[in-house]
Amino acid sequence: MSARRPVIAFAMSDSVRGRVFPERVMREYAAAADIAGILTEYTSDHARSVLARVEVLVTGWGAPRIDTAALDAAPRLEAVLHAAGTVKPYLDPAVLERGVRVSSAAGANAVPVAEFAVAMIVLAGKQVLPIARHYRQVQDEFDIEASFPGLGNYGQRVGIIGASKIGRIVIGMLRAYAFEVVVYDPYLTEADAAELGVISVALDELLRTSRVVSVHAPSLPSTIDLVDAAGIASMPRGATLVNTARGEIVDQDALTRRVLAGELFAILDVTVPWILEPDHPLYTSEHALLTPHIAGSYGVELERLSGVMLDELLRISRGEPLAHEVEPELLAITA
Amino acid sequence: MSARRPVIAFAMSDSVRGRVFPERVMREYAAAADIAGILTEYTSDHARSVLARVEVLVTGWGAPRIDTAALDAAPRLEAVLHAAGTVKPYLDPAVLERGVRVSSAAGANAVPVAEFAVAMIVLAGKQVLPIARHYRQVQDEFDIEASFPGLGNYGQRVGIIGASKIGRIVIGMLRAYAFEVVVYDPYLTEADAAELGVISVALDELLRTSRVVSVHAPSLPSTIDLVDAAGIASMPRGATLVNTARGEIVDQDALTRRVLAGELFAILDVTVPWILEPDHPLYTSEHALLTPHIAGSYGVELERLSGVMLDELLRISRGEPLAHEVEPELLAITA
Ligand SMILES: NC(=O)c1ccc[n+]([C@@H]2O[C@H](COP(=O)([O-])OP(=O)(O)OC[C@H]3O[C@@H](n4cnc5c(N)ncnc54)[C@H](O)[C@@H]3O)[C@@H](O)[C@H]2O)c1
Ligand SMILES: NC(=O)c1ccc[n+]([C@@H]2O[C@H](COP(=O)([O-])OP(=O)(O)OC[C@H]3O[C@@H](n4cnc5c(N)ncnc54)[C@H](O)[C@@H]3O)[C@@H](O)[C@H]2O)c1
Repeated sequence: MSARRPVIAFAMSDSVRGRVFPERVMREYAAAADIAGILTEYTSDHARSVLARVEVLVTGWGAPRIDTAALDAAPRLEAVLHAAGTVKPYLDPAVLERGVRVSSAAGANAVPVAEFAVAMIVLAGKQVLPIARHYRQVQDEFDIEASFPGLGNYGQRVGIIGASKIGRIVIGMLRAYAFEVVVYDPYLTEADAAELGVISVALDELLRTSRVVSVHAPSLPSTIDLVDAAGIASMPRGATLVNTARGEIVDQDALTRRVLAGELFAILDVTVPWILEPDHPLYTSEHALLTPHIAGSYGVELERLSGVMLDELLRISRGEPLAHEVEPELLAITA
Repeated sequence: MSARRPVIAFAMSDSVRGRVFPERVMREYAAAADIAGILTEYTSDHARSVLARVEVLVTGWGAPRIDTAALDAAPRLEAVLHAAGTVKPYLDPAVLERGVRVSSAAGANAVPVAEFAVAMIVLAGKQVLPIARHYRQVQDEFDIEASFPGLGNYGQRVGIIGASKIGRIVIGMLRAYAFEVVVYDPYLTEADAAELGVISVALDELLRTSRVVSVHAPSLPSTIDLVDAAGIASMPRGATLVNTARGEIVDQDALTRRVLAGELFAILDVTVPWILEPDHPLYTSEHALLTPHIAGSYGVELERLSGVMLDELLRISRGEPLAHEVEPELLAITA
């Protein structure tokens, strides 16, 4: 069967397009499809003439939201390929209701987040960053095991909150280590847990017994303050909380208090607000490491996103099913 | 076939024994063998009476060196099980010459070193620690890709120096990532490289083209300054050198100069000397992270070492071959 050449258009902010779709990648798209245009809005005459022809819309961060007016202007639209994470801010529910298929690179964007989390879990278990800070201060030999009791990564319990896309990649990667992995996720069935090779536990048990806790739940009304003050209080002295999910899932004030008291370590890629206010004590705490939301795709990692969506485009050309189709019935419990 | 109960003795420093062989582990050894004694030297009357009976000597860090006098005192000695890394400082060559089998936990001790190196390679590719430092300083939003050009872990080249025990575990773990892994090791055959799934390259090419370089060669006369000033000079701006092997393998002064100039990053678990002199500029450099030789087994990881040697003891009991026997002909090129 010979492949067809779909008519496609790109819609996202110019700066995102330059980074996610560099020239080499654009040539690959041009080889697979007819490019009708490059859009940053759906309302101008130019945009409407492009929408009139488009069969596949390739979107990314900063894309205009596809509302019913845009949909009405795009009668041939069959699929939206979103070369970024969550599609929620970019789609009116009408898109899925009208049978437009939507694929997202959230699974590909999950990879660097999982890599970041696993590296941090390993360093946390070994207390590498606190040891490095202490060494920098004393500039001399010191008794490592006396200063950092219980350090090491052999047989330690790691708690994963959320068997999400990212959480599942983390769980898979942790199989290469001698950790005992426990998971809290109210949507995880016993059969799923067994298949993942993890022990499913209640959240309070996870927090009370894990040496390192890594948060991978989506931000939903039901997950705000999921790790609340009582949960933070129950974490054992010397434990580390890694959060690459969303700040609002954790009671940040309760966490900050125990971190500043030197009782817990925090590795936070996400906080509330997104960029902590200047002079927040976590910035300079010896027990915290803050990064400004960098765990997701950055730099060379952005090409992974355009790469997986190119594969989706080729599947459309060959008449094959999409590999990363968004399932509408899961939108309520996903990021 | 019923298992025999070998007569064993322990020889290492008391503090090491307490940490590597805690009571729970000692009970497992006692269940498998008759414990003739616990030694810290081989010359007292007590030690000689223990050596007279011992069939298997279980050693560790700080063990007295087994010299010909000790060997003469131990006519029944069949095997030495070393619950630590390299055996070289602990054995007179006569031990192997007389046909005593020697097993070492160097392969088990390699695991945490590889875990440490992989975590650092991932963080280095993503420039996580420099980004965290910058964020701590500015306490504000900043343009991450402009400040840290080329960051990210997708398709980046990682150079491994030495397909050693540790180097091979690192290579295996890196398969879970989208790196391009190149290796320099003069003892690695093309067939071995293919089986490991890596590209074998010359050292100068590795240093010139890798985004992250991780050193895993043993310290030997032939590896002193293996990464010399010219090699350091050839590394691309923004690259990271991770060294968990031995400080003397790298020209530390040349490295320090480029790190202080802000051109390279260094993650050093090992230096010359072992503990850097106070006020060495690497301690406080924004482009360096120093740890005091912690990548090997520490804390809870020490039980992995007594665990693998217990398995060796059980193999002796069952008359099976050892799984981690030291190969005398490799001693010249191993750590
Ligand atoms: N730091 C970054 O750069 C970055 C990048 C991407 C995603 N994220 C964040 O990472 C998190 C995970 O993202 P994802 O795409 O893997 O999520 P996802 O959409 O796959 O998560 C959905 C799953 O989470 C689980 N879940 C739902 N409610 C839960 C609850 N109350 N408790 C525990 N688990 C629950 C369920 O298994 C559900 O299927 C999200 O918070 C997301 O915003 C951060
Ligand atoms: N930081 C720590 O806590 C820690 C702990 C354990 C080991 N180490 C160090 O890690 C390094 C690796 O240890 P290992 O037990 O894996 O080593 P090993 O004994 O397995 O190394 C031997 C191998 O190194 C390779 N090799 C030999 N000469 C080489 C050369 N000139 N160039 C490149 N490769 C060469 C060969 O493949 C050889 O088989 C050593 O330097 C060791 O001292 C550090």
